[in-house]
Amino acid sequence: MTKTVGVIGGMGPAATCDLMEKIVALTKAASDQEHLHMIADVNTAIPDRTAAILHGGPDPVPEMVKSARRLVSAGAEILVMPCNTAHYFYDDIAAAVRVPVLHMARETAAALRAAGIETAGVLATDGTVQSGVYERALAEAGVRAVYPGPAMQREVMRLIYEGVKARTAPLASIPAGDILADVRAQGAETVLLACTELPIAFRELGLSEGCLDPTRVLAFAAVKAAGAETTAPDPW
Amino acid sequence: MTKTVGVIGGMGPAATCDLMEKIVALTKAASDQEHLHMIADVNTAIPDRTAAILHGGPDPVPEMVKSARRLVSAGAEILVMPCNTAHYFYDDIAAAVRVPVLHMARETAAALRAAGIETAGVLATDGTVQSGVYERALAEAGVRAVYPGPAMQREVMRLIYEGVKARTAPLASIPAGDILADVRAQGAETVLLACTELPIAFRELGLSEGCLDPTRVLAFAAVKAAGAETTAPDPW
Repeated sequence: MTKTVGVIGGMGPAATCDLMEKIVALTKAASDQEHLHMIADVNTAIPDRTAAILHGGPDPVPEMVKSARRLVSAGAEILVMPCNTAHYFYDDIAAAVRVPVLHMARETAAALRAAGIETAGVLATDGTVQSGVYERALAEAGVRAVYPGPAMQREVMRLIYEGVKARTAPLASIPAGDILADVRAQGAETVLLACTELPIAFRELGLSEGCLDPTRVLAFAAVKAAGAETTAPDPW
Repeated sequence: MTKTVGVIGGMGPAATCDLMEKIVALTKAASDQEHLHMIADVNTAIPDRTAAILHGGPDPVPEMVKSARRLVSAGAEILVMPCNTAHYFYDDIAAAVRVPVLHMARETAAALRAAGIETAGVLATDGTVQSGVYERALAEAGVRAVYPGPAMQREVMRLIYEGVKARTAPLASIPAGDILADVRAQGAETVLLACTELPIAFRELGLSEGCLDPTRVLAFAAVKAAGAETTAPDPW
């Protein structure tokens, strides 16, 4: 008997769909009925996470907790949050429910260690970078984190907010290749696309080679935690 | 204030993600918070719809009703079912809840009529074809439905079950172009990809030009019914 996966979604909505698709693709199943039961709450009332961490914006925790409880009431037995920045608030969410909440950054750090990676580039929102979500998870796994310089970090933010969330800037107008070159020049053996909008952008740009997608890592971990077989041996 | 959209999902799980993505893409929004609140129940315990209609397989209605009620309890104010065949059971589901349930085939028929189409090809599961779900909806809108011959209909079923659901047959091994040619030879001005797995297959094959995707029609109708602005003037 597999477990029901609950998805605390809406951070952003496209990333929720991306995670769900990856869970479906990573589940070994020959019919609809062999797939996992999932319930997703695309709760777009959750305030912006980066704004809350860096600029005193409204606290996202109450709405995140509402989603977590709504999912557990509906039958979820494991929770996932497809938003890297949201993991700054992980302890509050995990404390609010009695079911396990998978931790995207810790799962990613474990995947890096398992692959023998010593230095990883981290592309993420200012909120994720400055809150140290990945810094801590990688350090605990003995992996060094390197980050883009200030100019390239501004381009990462544009890629996320203007390129994917608002679709106001064409992706090709943002120098995504230069962002990768920046962290690789600092010794990154792989690059974490540690904002859920980034795998979408890098895939569309054809630049995801040599990158690790924490959304895929989370999907892989969810399939395993739910007790299903995966279609791949690892999340790379 | 927009309404919360509930998605009776899992028929199949990939189609659920596809609909959700289309709702996100069709919603005019410049930030996560401007998107619609959606709740999806990927209920993979729902038995196969075609098997129930044609071969006396287990009745999918009880699990579909469970999902509908679970979604309404969680806050859904409009329901959608991203599965064409499931609309054979539409009346049972609509009668089980007090919120509106959008009807994929009727919305599609309305889109055809609005575009002045007189004859449409219908590619669907044997269950959808034989149950007359599209036949009736199109007839009510004054549109003639044409279907692939028996050999090509078997290829439609292979495309759905082996090509997309099980991924046991490479899509390119199935003569999808011949299926389109069959219904076009019968006068189809457009081709309905009336099984939710088909838009996925035809997009991957680069053959979706000149086809109408009822999943996109349903997504468009859901965005409108929820009270949000759409990013496109029509579902084509």
